[in-house]
Amino acid sequence: MCETCGCQTIHHHTSHRRVVDVFEGLLDANNAQAEANRRHIEAMGAVAINMISGPGSGKTTLLEKTIDLLKTRLRIGVIEGDIETELDADRIRAKGVPVVQLTTGGACHLDAPLIHQGIHSLERQLNGRGLDLLFIENVGNLVCPATFDLGEHRRVVLVSVPEGSDKPTKYPKAFMSSHAFIITKKDVLPYFDFSLEKAEIEALKLNPKLSVISLSAFTGEGLDAWVSYLRSLENRGRP
Amino acid sequence: MCETCGCQTIHHHTSHRRVVDVFEGLLDANNAQAEANRRHIEAMGAVAINMISGPGSGKTTLLEKTIDLLKTRLRIGVIEGDIETELDADRIRAKGVPVVQLTTGGACHLDAPLIHQGIHSLERQLNGRGLDLLFIENVGNLVCPATFDLGEHRRVVLVSVPEGSDKPTKYPKAFMSSHAFIITKKDVLPYFDFSLEKAEIEALKLNPKLSVISLSAFTGEGLDAWVSYLRSLENRGRP
Repeated sequence: MCETCGCQTIHHHTSHRRVVDVFEGLLDANNAQAEANRRHIEAMGAVAINMISGPGSGKTTLLEKTIDLLKTRLRIGVIEGDIETELDADRIRAKGVPVVQLTTGGACHLDAPLIHQGIHSLERQLNGRGLDLLFIENVGNLVCPATFDLGEHRRVVLVSVPEGSDKPTKYPKAFMSSHAFIITKKDVLPYFDFSLEKAEIEALKLNPKLSVISLSAFTGEGLDAWVSYLRSLENRGRP
Repeated sequence: MCETCGCQTIHHHTSHRRVVDVFEGLLDANNAQAEANRRHIEAMGAVAINMISGPGSGKTTLLEKTIDLLKTRLRIGVIEGDIETELDADRIRAKGVPVVQLTTGGACHLDAPLIHQGIHSLERQLNGRGLDLLFIENVGNLVCPATFDLGEHRRVVLVSVPEGSDKPTKYPKAFMSSHAFIITKKDVLPYFDFSLEKAEIEALKLNPKLSVISLSAFTGEGLDAWVSYLRSLENRGRP
C-alpha cells in the first residue's frame, strides 16, 4: 500500500519522483541556456521582456499598441510563442517590425533553448541592424511559463479585468517571479466584478517590488505609464 | 553541434528526450488510474464532468449557478482543483453541496491519482449517500489539463467572450479531446470583438462531435441548454 495516499498502487508516486529528478535536470539546462540568451541579447544592445498571462488576456493587442507608440523612437523585435498557428506573428508583422513565431507543438510554455533559436532567426531578419527592445510573448498560460527563465531582463505578468481580481492569489508563482503586473482591459471595469485595489494588494503581498500598471489598449488609458516603464529600461541592456 | 537546431550544445535535447520517455510512463500510469476512477465513480452511480478552461473563464460561477438550478433534483458533488487556495471550494461549499479542494502545490493540472484521493475524501463526506453528478473543476489552464484523463465521462472546455474567438485554433487539444464547448460571459458580447459563429466553426473543425452551448451565468441566458445537456447524461453512469 502506498504510504503517501493510502492507495493500493505506488506506481504514480514512483513515476512522479522520476519526473521530478529529470525535470530538475532540464531546469538546470534551461537556466544555463537562459544566461547565455541574456548575454546574447545584451550583446545586441537590447533589453528583453517576457510577457506571461492566461489565454486571451490581451498580450498581442498590448504589443500592437506598444509598437504603434514606440516604433519611431525604438527598434523593436518580437518573438511570439504559441502552441499552434502563426496568428499572433501575422498581427505583429502587420505592424512592420521583425517578428519570429515559435510554435511549441503542444508544449505549454517557451523555454530558453527555443528562445535561443528564436534569437538567431531574429538576427537573420535584422541583418546587422540593432535592436532596443525584444518582446517575448509567451504561450497563453498563467502557470508553466513562470518556471522557465528565457534570458529576459524583465518579466511582466498580465491579468485582464474579466478574469477576476483573485488571480494573483490563485496563481502566485507568476507574480512572485515577475517585475511588473499589468491589469488589462480596464475599459470594461463597469461590466465586471473586479477590484483594481484588491488585485494590486494581493499581488504586492506576493511580491512587494512589482510595478503595477492598469490600462486599456482599446481606449489608450494607462498606456503612458506602460510606455514610461519600457523607456526606463531602454538603456539597461546596452554593453 | 546539435543536429536539431544547429547550436553548439545538445544537452537540452538530451534532457528533453529523457523527459518525454518518463512523461510517457507517467501518462500510462495516469490512464490506468483514470480507468479505475471511472469504474469507481460509476459504482457510486454518478457521472463525472471534467471542466477545463484558462484562468477566469467562469468555471466556478457556472458551477454555482448549475448547483442552484439542479440541487433539488440531482445529488451533486464537486472536486475543485487549484494550484493554491481554498477560494473556489469555499464558494461551492456555500451552495450546500459536498466539495473537496485539491491543491496541486504548483502543478499545472489535475491528474488521475489526485482525483483518486479526491473521490475518497468525497465519499467520507457523503457517508453512504449517493451521487448523480460529480463536477471536477480543473486548474485554470487551457493547455496541460487536456492531456490528462481523470476518469471523467464528459470533458467540457470553456472559453469566455473576453478571451477572443481565436482560442479553439490556438489551443486545439482541449477542443479535440472534449465533448462539449461552452462559451461563457455571453452578456458582454457587445463590449468585445468576439464572433460566436467563428468560435463555433473553428471548434467544430477540430472536433465535429462537440456540443456547443453559449451562455451567461450572470443573466441566465443559455443555462437551460446547459442544464438539458447535463440531464441527458444523468443516467449514463448508473450500474
